[in-house]
Amino acid sequence: MKIKDFRVHAIAIADPPLRSSYGLHAPYALRTIIELESEDGITGINETYGGEAPVAALLAMKEQLIGADPFRITGMLNPEMKYSHDGYDRSQTFKVPGENPLDETTRTFAAIEVACLDLIGKSIGVPVCDLIGGRVRDKVAFSAYPFYKHAGGGGEGADTREDEYGEALSPGALVKQVKKMIAVYGFESVKFKAGVLDPAVEIETIKQLYRELGPGVPLRIDPNSAWTVDTSVEVGKALAVELSGGGYLEDPAAGIDGMAAVRKRLLEMGIDTPLASNVAITSFGDIPVCVANDAVQVILCDHHYWGGMRQVQHLAKLAETFKIGLSMHSNSHLGISLMAMAHVAAATPHLTYACDTHYPWQQEKDEVVEGGRVPIKDGCVTIPDKPGLGVSLDLDQLERGKERYRNIPYRKRDDEAEMRRHIDPGWKRILPRW
Amino acid sequence: MKIKDFRVHAIAIADPPLRSSYGLHAPYALRTIIELESEDGITGINETYGGEAPVAALLAMKEQLIGADPFRITGMLNPEMKYSHDGYDRSQTFKVPGENPLDETTRTFAAIEVACLDLIGKSIGVPVCDLIGGRVRDKVAFSAYPFYKHAGGGGEGADTREDEYGEALSPGALVKQVKKMIAVYGFESVKFKAGVLDPAVEIETIKQLYRELGPGVPLRIDPNSAWTVDTSVEVGKALAVELSGGGYLEDPAAGIDGMAAVRKRLLEMGIDTPLASNVAITSFGDIPVCVANDAVQVILCDHHYWGGMRQVQHLAKLAETFKIGLSMHSNSHLGISLMAMAHVAAATPHLTYACDTHYPWQQEKDEVVEGGRVPIKDGCVTIPDKPGLGVSLDLDQLERGKERYRNIPYRKRDDEAEMRRHIDPGWKRILPRW
Repeated sequence: MKIKDFRVHAIAIADPPLRSSYGLHAPYALRTIIELESEDGITGINETYGGEAPVAALLAMKEQLIGADPFRITGMLNPEMKYSHDGYDRSQTFKVPGENPLDETTRTFAAIEVACLDLIGKSIGVPVCDLIGGRVRDKVAFSAYPFYKHAGGGGEGADTREDEYGEALSPGALVKQVKKMIAVYGFESVKFKAGVLDPAVEIETIKQLYRELGPGVPLRIDPNSAWTVDTSVEVGKALAVELSGGGYLEDPAAGIDGMAAVRKRLLEMGIDTPLASNVAITSFGDIPVCVANDAVQVILCDHHYWGGMRQVQHLAKLAETFKIGLSMHSNSHLGISLMAMAHVAAATPHLTYACDTHYPWQQEKDEVVEGGRVPIKDGCVTIPDKPGLGVSLDLDQLERGKERYRNIPYRKRDDEAEMRRHIDPGWKRILPRW
Repeated sequence: MKIKDFRVHAIAIADPPLRSSYGLHAPYALRTIIELESEDGITGINETYGGEAPVAALLAMKEQLIGADPFRITGMLNPEMKYSHDGYDRSQTFKVPGENPLDETTRTFAAIEVACLDLIGKSIGVPVCDLIGGRVRDKVAFSAYPFYKHAGGGGEGADTREDEYGEALSPGALVKQVKKMIAVYGFESVKFKAGVLDPAVEIETIKQLYRELGPGVPLRIDPNSAWTVDTSVEVGKALAVELSGGGYLEDPAAGIDGMAAVRKRLLEMGIDTPLASNVAITSFGDIPVCVANDAVQVILCDHHYWGGMRQVQHLAKLAETFKIGLSMHSNSHLGISLMAMAHVAAATPHLTYACDTHYPWQQEKDEVVEGGRVPIKDGCVTIPDKPGLGVSLDLDQLERGKERYRNIPYRKRDDEAEMRRHIDPGWKRILPRW
């Protein structure tokens, strides 16, 4: 089997005005869809981060890919991954995911790996999860992922979307948002994006969620490094009960040192709430110092920037070996990424928490997979009985996404600029803020 | 694709009277050959440890395998691997490889995984290395593996083999053995099995090898835990020059604690010779304490007992992450195991030393792969342009191996019993001996 064509499509999708410590989501999220077509006319697809830089990095691979054997491409490209194992702090503390130049090579590699696996699977009639070691589960659980948000469903002008969830800038409104999300998707755990309002308000939000949902629904809170070590410890103490039983405290303070300090102090107080991270720890190079300092007890991996599905499986075994939990980070995405997450999760024995997904924040009208949105039922994505990733491209929908991209000025993700544009002209991301 | 039949063949092959700290190799080494046949009539093969216990463990899987999809078998069986992550010391300090009941499940799993990969590869026309991530190299380097030995080529009675290498119980004889092995196979590094004669004689053996082969040929020495920490440090000091430049000191003292103590004292003397291990560290459960104590700088993995090819790849990434070197352990084996080692090595980027192989000690007359022995040229096995493992079974040769097994009394490996039977009726394995 040989690659005949490699196509890269920049698309934009409406994204609601979600808030985090990074700032504000723009009206559009940017994604890149790729196609790898074999000489037999079968096409493997994948989805990754969007905007100019990822597209350019992918297009630069075209010459190497044409004529190559999809079974061998990952081996051929592997030496180019150039993981940095010297030192650490290749982190997302100061950069939103997808905008970190230090993981550009692993992001590019990952995008191509998954497209190869989809092409191989579609060519031989095998689901991707069974190509990479075999499924250990058929259903992959995801969490509700509530955000504080402004009113609006995303998009601009004629492309403005209905505001399904409304404004949510108080504990009560956030609880309402979560209940709606659970009613629609059946999620059985909640990952709450914090770092936006005063910590006292965010503590109250978790307490209200706990009261309303009961102790059977694991709660997680993620302020994306917005807090000092002291504040992190205070929150951990205030929410010791609410974050127990499958919950975690995610990236409260900045950096591996900050996380290690929070962990140490909470343990001294007898509070064993695990600290999770997709900010302090984003590459294999971060792991030795994390392990040596017990800085992170749950790694939130992401095949998109860790270097693909097989690297995630390596990471999972490493985490299992060091008794570190594993879950999955997400970014605004469509159904191809959701299915890729589900496939690698299905073939990864050591997955100890329901995965994150932004999928509820995206909309049917922007979906590029044939047949519309991937169903999430009882909080789970089920691996379909179809080859490859189990989804194919709707070329008309893809064209709409490309047109949307052409018509907007956004070419990279910049949540700080959006915050200044729409909310507060003087806003700056300050770490720690509280 | 579904499995129609699963066949397990116990065979015996002549093995010369090689010595190690475990004792003496029996006149026959035991191996198990398995066949997984699909409904399409294609057969995947593999080779693993031999004797009654491995055969029984494999046969016990038959019911689960018949009717299963080879793409899904590894996922289906994964929960049964039951790695022990609680505590450590699942080691081969006191047991020869293949006779450790604690890794029976991973050995059984590995045997089936590789047979599935061979079957898949042969069914879709793809080499195994390209099914598991894609080759990063086409040629896999192996080391010369000299042993002190008694006269005799192995086998018994009419099955007695010509003694190709002769007795080697002195430094000079061992140098001669190595030179012959290098002349035949082109090896470019040497792994010397020690722990047999007085350490002063073994030091002298390495010194003679160094003088005769020159500093361009990396030298490694492996006494299989035969030494005290003091003796290990003395040997490390005496051979600081000879083991530098790609050499290592393998399992000098018993256990992770012993290894860590040797490492610490050598470093204090300014000697940075890496310590390698396939005895103190034989499972993922051993790794955290190894890392925490800097006990091992080179892991000698073995897909046969680490749980298969993908587990070896996980291990390699873990080793890379913690800046630990990786090479490969071997046991007496035929061409199927050699090809499996070559395939996983080809698809494992982080492989930092030439691999071990006992293959020169086995003979053409016992080989079960069609076309005879797998060629080793310039010290390397080249991945052939053939699907699966690239080798198939010679059924006549297999039958001869089974007949040999039926005709001999050996049903497990017991080097201590052999030592008593042939060399010294009162011999016991004593750790440490020196």
